[in-house]
Parts: sequence; C-alpha cells; structure tokens
Amino acid sequence: MKILLPPELGFCFGVKRAVEMAEESLKKDKKVFSLGWLIHNPRVIEELEKKGVKTVNSLSRIKEGTLIIRSHGAPLSLIEEAKKRGLKIVDATCPYVRKVQNLAKKLEKDSYQVVIIGSPEHPEVKGVLSGLRKKGKVVTSPEEAKKIGKVKKLGVVVQTTENLDNFLKCVKNLLAKAEEVRIFNTICKVIQERQKATLRVAREAELMVVVGGKNSSNTRKLFELCQKEGKKTYFIEEAQELKKKKLKGFKKIGITGGTSTPLSEIEKVVKILEGREFKCMLQGQKRKNF
Amino acid sequence: MKILLPPELGFCFGVKRAVEMAEESLKKDKKVFSLGWLIHNPRVIEELEKKGVKTVNSLSRIKEGTLIIRSHGAPLSLIEEAKKRGLKIVDATCPYVRKVQNLAKKLEKDSYQVVIIGSPEHPEVKGVLSGLRKKGKVVTSPEEAKKIGKVKKLGVVVQTTENLDNFLKCVKNLLAKAEEVRIFNTICKVIQERQKATLRVAREAELMVVVGGKNSSNTRKLFELCQKEGKKTYFIEEAQELKKKKLKGFKKIGITGGTSTPLSEIEKVVKILEGREFKCMLQGQKRKNF
Repeated sequence: MKILLPPELGFCFGVKRAVEMAEESLKKDKKVFSLGWLIHNPRVIEELEKKGVKTVNSLSRIKEGTLIIRSHGAPLSLIEEAKKRGLKIVDATCPYVRKVQNLAKKLEKDSYQVVIIGSPEHPEVKGVLSGLRKKGKVVTSPEEAKKIGKVKKLGVVVQTTENLDNFLKCVKNLLAKAEEVRIFNTICKVIQERQKATLRVAREAELMVVVGGKNSSNTRKLFELCQKEGKKTYFIEEAQELKKKKLKGFKKIGITGGTSTPLSEIEKVVKILEGREFKCMLQGQKRKNF
Repeated sequence: MKILLPPELGFCFGVKRAVEMAEESLKKDKKVFSLGWLIHNPRVIEELEKKGVKTVNSLSRIKEGTLIIRSHGAPLSLIEEAKKRGLKIVDATCPYVRKVQNLAKKLEKDSYQVVIIGSPEHPEVKGVLSGLRKKGKVVTSPEEAKKIGKVKKLGVVVQTTENLDNFLKCVKNLLAKAEEVRIFNTICKVIQERQKATLRVAREAELMVVVGGKNSSNTRKLFELCQKEGKKTYFIEEAQELKKKKLKGFKKIGITGGTSTPLSEIEKVVKILEGREFKCMLQGQKRKNF
C-alpha cells in the first residue's frame, strides 16, 4: 500500500515570514496582537497563542502593544486607526498580497474599472478593496463575471489563492465587457504549483487527504480540486482526525496540504498511515523534511 | 415562404469611405491605382476599374499618379517606397484598422510582446506587423495560442474582422503565458453586430445565403458561422450564382452579406427569391434600402 505526496509541502514564503515576524516581535514587546488569525491554520495559531501572540477580533480590545498585520493584509483604515491608538505596527502582509494591492491602486489611477477575482469575504480581497478610492468590483465565478457592466477600460487582479481554472473562465467572460482589458495574474506561484502537483497526485491516488485550516482559502481550493477530479477526499485540520476515518480498501492514498499547513502536521499523517502498513512514496520530496 | 434578413446590411463605414476616396481621387488625377483590391468584393472592384481605378500587384507597375492605400492598410515600407517614387498617396486605411496599428505600436513601446490574433496572410495583419520594430506574433487558433512562449508582459490586439468566439478562446490560452496580459478588443463593432445578427437569422432559417467576396475575411467568417450553426449555407459572390442552386424544399431562407458586400447585390438576391414566391421579412431592415 502506498502513500503519495507532492514534491513540495509546508509553509510558503509569506506564511513562514509572518510566523517569524510574530515570534521576532515577542522578543521586543510582551503585548503582541493579531487582528484575526495571523495565518489560516488552527494548530499554528494555538502554538503562537502559547508563545504569547494574542488573536483579537477588534482593535478596541488592544490598549497598547504591537499589532501584527496578518499575511492576508488589512484594510488601510484599520492600520491608520491602530497608528492613532499609538500601537506599534509590524506589517506581515505577504509581499505577493502587497503586489495585488499596489497593482489594483495603479490600475485605478490609470482610469481602469478595477475587478478582483476572488472571494468578497476573504481578508485579502477586503484589504485590496480598501486601498481603492472608487468601488472595486469582486467577481467569484464566471457567471458573476457575465453580470459586470460594460466600461471602456477594465483592470483585473486576482486573489493570490484563487484557482487558476476559475480565474481563466472568469476572465474569458470579462473580455466582452470592455474595449481594453488589462489583466494581472497575481495568483501566487507557490499556490499554482501546489495545485498542479496536488492534481497529479489525485489522479494517481484512490483516496486523498487534504490537511489544513478549514478557513484557509488555498487549502480549501485543494480540497475542491480533488473532489472535482472525482476522488474521495478527506479534509482534516489535524492528523488525529484521520484515525476516525475509513482507510480500509484503499491501496494508494495521496496527501496534500495548503501553504499554511505545517510540514509537521503532514508528517503526523504520514506516520499514522505508515502504522497501517502504508509505505511512503515521496515523489521527489526530500526525506529530511520528515 | 419567407426570406429572413439581419437589420443592417451593406457597406460598413470604412468600406464606404475607401470607395468614396477612390472616386474622389479620380476627380483630381486620371491615374489612380490600388495595390491589391481596394476592398474585398469582385463586383465593386469591377465597377471601380470601369471608372478608372486600376488594381496592380506591384509598385513597379505604377510609374506616376495616385496610389490609394486600401481599407486594410499597407506595410509602412511600401508606403515609404511609394512616396520615394513620387506617387501621391491617398490613405483609405479604415480608421479602425489604423487604431489596431497604433495600439500594437504603443504596446511594443511599453515593452509588451505583441500578439495579433488573426490571419498571418491577411493584408491588415501584415500591415500591423510592419509597423513594429521587433517581431510581433500572429495567433490564428486557440491551439496556436497554447504554443506561444512565456514572457513577462503580453500585449494583444485582434484583426478587425476576427470572429469574437475565436478571439475569446485564443485569449483564454494566452492568459497563462504572462504575468500581465493587456488586451485590446479591436474587432470592428459593425462586424461583431453583423455576426450576431447573422447568427440570429441562421438559427431561424432552413437555408442560409452568404453574399460577398470569397477573399473577404469578414464575409467568410459569416459563412463559417452559419455552417457551425449546422445550417446548409451557400456562399455566393454574385446574385446570379443563386439561380443554379437548389432552393426547392426550403421554406425559410436567410440572407446575409459582409461589410464589403454592396446592398445592391443583396437586393438582387432578394428579387430572385421573390420571383420564386418567397416573401421578404425584413426584421427591422428599412425598406428604403431596397
């Protein structure tokens, strides 16, 4: 019986950076806060909480100390409000998210109607919208793209964790909406690669296990990708959950995880399966990671 | 028995303008030339020849007089060569084609790899390419779009007579080729409307008659559109050709024509059908045109 893994797993650059910045902040200040989860993984947040990084839901909860802007970015108004309150700001916005924010602003400055392909509820999208003077439009699906009104110039950016195929389908429907359509494919390359590699594993596996936060956009997209491929898929946040799942009868099990899923959690999943006589086929994954 | 027609037929603005400019030139100069057909319709060219506009295949055939640059535009080198030879230039390049030329140049100036969606053999595409310093790429089909190499910035324009659906499919495949893709939908609006209206007629008709030059790109696309819709379609250059075609058994016949097809030729087709007891349903077409 085999375990199949994509060649690269674990944190992406932006998540690793955010966690390190939070830990670094604790060396300088004992009161370190994050407004909403720093990254979308319950295990990581739990560990950070233990170390002293407090997650709060509102700025009013913070009287003094350091506010870490999470990897997905934050609305400009919120950052300004925090500064007014005298908080120290540590900006852990992922540089790729920052790029989306800047491109959207530049497009607006150059008179494009800005469209963001992504989820209107996601903090990244909210952050991008907050940087615009006029109202940016959010498009989630190709059907929604069809409903966008006609304008002269349309400028498009995309949530860094968006699915490539959905992005392409949305853009196809946006093309008829303006004489000029200027598109920046701002999907994070690590995420694109993770999606492609996951798809390759899913095609070979009989069962897929997706490990990561349920509120992690990119992890959820991996789950949807496996399901679309017609594969039975378990979406678990922690390795322990796997013990309750049916594994009998499957000879090839694929594992994947989002860019906010720690490699240590994947390792635990591998060990549980190895305990059931599965043998790990690493497909290019360096053994030293485990 | 019914004849079905789209609401608008006959020359588009650019074709009308080119023919008028040719006729105007004859008032000022007796030696008026066009390098290649001024517009892609044999009947119109024949009439212009009678009036005195001579079509030649090479600049070397023109010793003196006026050279009309045809509606599709011409390579820059050719225009410069003509000027050197002391010819008077009357530029009948369609303003919409001129716009494609200018946009392609601007994209190149702003460091985009220029891609033209269209036919590499068409004079319009050749003219656009000739204005670029580096090599522009021509893409005819979605399959060809897939083969374009990856670059940082891709700038896309499209032949004014391209089919909208093919354009959209090509662009979808180009989106994965660069971080930024800037697209100008330069398909002529008259042609887009003609295509849509033709499709509506084709859906209702049992037989379609497409009237126009066989070398007219936009007329040929109307023919292809009707065929793709699964309708039996006759592509004729002159009304007379219809007399030899099988018409029996069809109760609803649709007629359409390209933007270089004179309305008078459509009228002749209508009259032939009326002679066979077909009744013309004008679908918004103003009767005064006939």
